[in-house]
Amino acid sequence: MNRRKFVKGGALLTLSNIAIVAALPTACAQQPGSSRGLYMIGPQPGYSPHIGTLVSMLNYNRQTIIESIDGLSTADLDFLVDAQANSIGALVLHLAAIEKIYQVTTFEGRREFNKQENKDWKAALDLGDAARKTIKGQPTSYYLERIAQVREKTLSSLKTKDDDWLLQADKDNVNNYWRWFHVCEHESIHRGEIVWLRKRLPGR
Amino acid sequence: MNRRKFVKGGALLTLSNIAIVAALPTACAQQPGSSRGLYMIGPQPGYSPHIGTLVSMLNYNRQTIIESIDGLSTADLDFLVDAQANSIGALVLHLAAIEKIYQVTTFEGRREFNKQENKDWKAALDLGDAARKTIKGQPTSYYLERIAQVREKTLSSLKTKDDDWLLQADKDNVNNYWRWFHVCEHESIHRGEIVWLRKRLPGR
Repeated sequence: MNRRKFVKGGALLTLSNIAIVAALPTACAQQPGSSRGLYMIGPQPGYSPHIGTLVSMLNYNRQTIIESIDGLSTADLDFLVDAQANSIGALVLHLAAIEKIYQVTTFEGRREFNKQENKDWKAALDLGDAARKTIKGQPTSYYLERIAQVREKTLSSLKTKDDDWLLQADKDNVNNYWRWFHVCEHESIHRGEIVWLRKRLPGR
Repeated sequence: MNRRKFVKGGALLTLSNIAIVAALPTACAQQPGSSRGLYMIGPQPGYSPHIGTLVSMLNYNRQTIIESIDGLSTADLDFLVDAQANSIGALVLHLAAIEKIYQVTTFEGRREFNKQENKDWKAALDLGDAARKTIKGQPTSYYLERIAQVREKTLSSLKTKDDDWLLQADKDNVNNYWRWFHVCEHESIHRGEIVWLRKRLPGR
């Protein structure tokens, strides 16, 4: 099923590109705890306007990650397509590790992981050999739970922040909006990789 | 050079993941025509607040695409890693084709490409066989010029719009902010694919 027709926002498109198709689920799923759909980017109740907009982006991208691993077996999640590849499972955990390090730096003002966090997240953060050796043997539910736990803290922390915190430049001319936009678009980067790998799983 | 240290926003990270490194150029480059850095997401002069914020995201992501093909030869841009793969060149042109169809639907109110647009963009939009046959033999400058031309129209059109246009839901519960956020994060999806392919080019 490489070609699907879909209508989104008035455009009837016929695409053979699964990355695009994957990004456009046919139903307008609702965000948990929100009456607004995933295809509505903008301010959200409970957050300042720009933070709520960021949250709507995080929610949309996260849903596409969840869908990208739907139906995969443990063997699929562990599959390594070549010697330098990362498994789909490791890539999903890597998303949470990156989110975690940005929590540490932007919410807690620390520059790096503490000992426990390194134990929990270092392999997923760095990927490569350590990840290939240690991140495996788990079902999709394991990955979904770990990324959900990290996301819960992100959302509760963002509720305590305001747009000044998000937009204010630091001395390096970087702001927290860039940092959290990067956490968001980083999920898209690896969704590209996950979709690529998924199409090349043995038996597909 | 798989491991680089970088400091961004107070976090000293050591990552082996080139996708992350690619997303974090060492210098805070300035946006063309703007005094604000690429690591500042937020409102921009000349645009309404939410549209300017979107533009800062588009600018940041575009710079990472430009860097992702830096130094590639025509043979690199044409390389097909396997029978179902797309070339890096085709993927870059695909970004512009998607941006073009969203211009048509959101700025011009048409549902699909006209005859000339199909001639110019259909292969890049669909990827696959047609793209493999027709998109090749060009240097990086060709791709950079084509994506820049499309982007110029996006930015000039967004200058004429306001936040109501961006945020307003249509009857399907989709808004223009989602559509243009998707054009933006779609560049990240394929950056993941480009980085993957770049690491597997012959002779690397």
